[in-house]
Amino acid sequence: MASGNDSRPVPRIPAGLRDTFAQDVVALRQMVNIIQTTYERYGFEPLETPALEYVDVLGKYLPDSDRPQGDIFSLRDEDGQWIALRYDLTAPLSRVIAKYGPELPTPFRRYQFGPVWRREKPGIGRFRQFYQCDFDTVGTSSLVADAEVCAVLSDCFESLGIRRGSYLIRVNNRKILNGVLDTIAIPSDESEGGESQRLVVLRAIDKLDRLGTEGVRELLTVGRRDPSGDFTPGAELTTKQADAVLDFVAAGGKDRVAVCSRLRELVAESAIGHEGANELEQIHSLLESMKLGSDQVVFDPSVVRGLAYYTGPVFEAVLTFETSEDEGERRPFGSVAGGGRYDGLVRRFTGTSVPATGCSIGVDRLLAALKAIGRANVEQFQGPVVVAVLDPKRLIEYQSMVTELRNAGIPAEIYLGDANFRSQLKYASRRRSPVAVIAGEDEFSRGEVSLKDLRLGKELSKEIKDREVWLREQPAQTSVRREQFVEAVSRLLER
Amino acid sequence: MASGNDSRPVPRIPAGLRDTFAQDVVALRQMVNIIQTTYERYGFEPLETPALEYVDVLGKYLPDSDRPQGDIFSLRDEDGQWIALRYDLTAPLSRVIAKYGPELPTPFRRYQFGPVWRREKPGIGRFRQFYQCDFDTVGTSSLVADAEVCAVLSDCFESLGIRRGSYLIRVNNRKILNGVLDTIAIPSDESEGGESQRLVVLRAIDKLDRLGTEGVRELLTVGRRDPSGDFTPGAELTTKQADAVLDFVAAGGKDRVAVCSRLRELVAESAIGHEGANELEQIHSLLESMKLGSDQVVFDPSVVRGLAYYTGPVFEAVLTFETSEDEGERRPFGSVAGGGRYDGLVRRFTGTSVPATGCSIGVDRLLAALKAIGRANVEQFQGPVVVAVLDPKRLIEYQSMVTELRNAGIPAEIYLGDANFRSQLKYASRRRSPVAVIAGEDEFSRGEVSLKDLRLGKELSKEIKDREVWLREQPAQTSVRREQFVEAVSRLLER
Repeated sequence: MASGNDSRPVPRIPAGLRDTFAQDVVALRQMVNIIQTTYERYGFEPLETPALEYVDVLGKYLPDSDRPQGDIFSLRDEDGQWIALRYDLTAPLSRVIAKYGPELPTPFRRYQFGPVWRREKPGIGRFRQFYQCDFDTVGTSSLVADAEVCAVLSDCFESLGIRRGSYLIRVNNRKILNGVLDTIAIPSDESEGGESQRLVVLRAIDKLDRLGTEGVRELLTVGRRDPSGDFTPGAELTTKQADAVLDFVAAGGKDRVAVCSRLRELVAESAIGHEGANELEQIHSLLESMKLGSDQVVFDPSVVRGLAYYTGPVFEAVLTFETSEDEGERRPFGSVAGGGRYDGLVRRFTGTSVPATGCSIGVDRLLAALKAIGRANVEQFQGPVVVAVLDPKRLIEYQSMVTELRNAGIPAEIYLGDANFRSQLKYASRRRSPVAVIAGEDEFSRGEVSLKDLRLGKELSKEIKDREVWLREQPAQTSVRREQFVEAVSRLLER
Repeated sequence: MASGNDSRPVPRIPAGLRDTFAQDVVALRQMVNIIQTTYERYGFEPLETPALEYVDVLGKYLPDSDRPQGDIFSLRDEDGQWIALRYDLTAPLSRVIAKYGPELPTPFRRYQFGPVWRREKPGIGRFRQFYQCDFDTVGTSSLVADAEVCAVLSDCFESLGIRRGSYLIRVNNRKILNGVLDTIAIPSDESEGGESQRLVVLRAIDKLDRLGTEGVRELLTVGRRDPSGDFTPGAELTTKQADAVLDFVAAGGKDRVAVCSRLRELVAESAIGHEGANELEQIHSLLESMKLGSDQVVFDPSVVRGLAYYTGPVFEAVLTFETSEDEGERRPFGSVAGGGRYDGLVRRFTGTSVPATGCSIGVDRLLAALKAIGRANVEQFQGPVVVAVLDPKRLIEYQSMVTELRNAGIPAEIYLGDANFRSQLKYASRRRSPVAVIAGEDEFSRGEVSLKDLRLGKELSKEIKDREVWLREQPAQTSVRREQFVEAVSRLLER
């Protein structure tokens, strides 16, 4: 497949990768601009790190993966060390903190937008290169930083036109889950990234949305065979232990204070469990002071986020409106952001814990959501004004028109192909041009220019069905004096 | 070196890669925004392609390299095919044209901004990941597209604050050089990317700026040993042939029409040479119609651009103001953009020639230039307003202040560390905060808030040398009513 005829290469891209054309590039850019402006309003400042990092620096923290280390794109550098494309933006942040240490302000509050790469099996909607936009606060254990994660997310969504009620930020605290697991005597395991029993329990809970209570019960106990025949080993809990875990994950609800009370009961005597419940209560007070209600932020013990490294509050933002993606049944759009507190990630390098908390927005997924509700601005995308070339001998005059438009700040181009007039209009329409500028012998002799309002034309063409009438009346076309045409184009663009 | 104590990884990045902190991220972003807006004004629309491509699709076109294929980051995909990080944005564009063909508008005018990766030996100012911002017109042989390359570049530079006279766009035509080489009987070689004699001649001419006439003469003839002892083989031209080439490269000058006449003489009977001279003359007329003078665009036969694939006009933009980089002697800043017409690049895939022309701005290099002339806005970079925490029990009240500032669109944060007041002010200064908001027991009892104008403070501290006076008078600090503090902060920010 690598070569075509005469050993010519086939123009193709590797599976799971994609090209993005103008409309989508612009829509993503506008969305990310709004997100970044929001992050900045909360005091986060931008950071960029290289795409390639040392493999041992990245560590084995690939989220939601059962084969952590295999799923990255890696190669050997000149000196024999393994380097790889980053799979998230958290590992590079940890490396930055460890590398620059005291040179950075404390706390260090950065955001980062950029692509990450995962060597996963590609599938519909599953890409091997995708964008994340993260914000993190490193160097403080203040719960204000955690409460603010909720505020940032909520502010981002509302700034993007996702209304209150259409999103929900679900918060849990890993300490409470640890408290419950202590209570039912599941051994804790301090090894980083290892396949401990607790990690298997975490992963099982994380699948509640997809598999329901009974599926999770199987994963907590004997394991589960999915419809395709694939078997996932279970956490080998007893029925009683599994019941306790399932009681815990079902303890959520609308009233944040009531949830805290219920959780306090479930963690019984566990000190770490109570600490977690206290933290949630403090977060509740801070949320109140930021006027974030329970229609925006809820406490939900079923949120675990699959990552072993979280040590405190964890967050997941879901969009609750229903869509039917891939022609399937209508269901809530689901998760678009996640994160939590990870006080141990810098310790890998330095031996010293550095408290940190933050969140990552999956921007490709969020853009898909905005498209689903018509808020991605893809329909508003607009190409340049096109100056048609009716008489190639007058190229210099057409060029002057284009230059005048550009000098007025109006995106414009002269038609550069060699097609006839009708095809030039087709080109303009394909480029989503708002206006075509038309000047032939007629117009030049009168000192005029014709302007075709292509947006109006598109609207009218829906109404006027009679092609003859259309051609005779040219309802979307007007003539203006040559010396006033830039002003006339401006007016058409403003409408 | 991969591991520290207790087999902890050392927080490091591979050579030739770098982290970019807030000031530089923002400066680059502002610069790229202006470049993109300019590209759009000329009718180019954005495209994004993945970082990874198949190696055979990328081809062997790494510019200015003597070991074309070795200098990329490559690895095997699951199915055994070689994939690699793109080394430029032209190869992916060619692949896009070949892949989507008639689905794209013709001409296809796209711009692309993004990182590229080269596995070169890192050095001072030489990075293995850097940004390019390209624009190309594919599918037309109209010289308007070539003339517009000059207009786009000139417009970009002036929009960025690089004044007319501080940049120069040098234009040549590969056809004229080919005409000269025909005339002196250097065999032409159609193989793509091969080490033909003509390519060696191209590379030699390309080094004129660096090595001077005598250095180039050596490379054109017997070869050259540089001061370090490295030997570069020569093109083995005779003295007479070398003289003809050196006459040609010296034929530039201020008057574009005069240069065209001289070139016409030098290409003697060569048909392709005359075609090239005609093209330059047409480009000159178009430049005139766009009001681009010879202080902006010159015709310079010494411009070859090292790439074998150029087939017509070639462009190089240099910044002419002098700087002393790396503490060295003062010299003109040099090249920041280059490109040309490459009608054969899509033929690799399809067997059919597709005319194309465009240019790439090296944005990292351009940002360095803007910094050198104080136009990169790095000094204007500003962090959030910092609300100091004087009384931890009043966290909720401080949080409310921050929320009010943010609701007014002002980037702000509550100090989240656990340092004393003086260190909090240090933190604010490190974050380049414009204003610190200060409220302790005193202020709360009076219903007031103190505002410290940190920018004014910085200015005044240069004047007031007496520390005692400074501390007593606090010239940059004012008190305002709590309910009016957001308005007061706004006013301070506007000044």
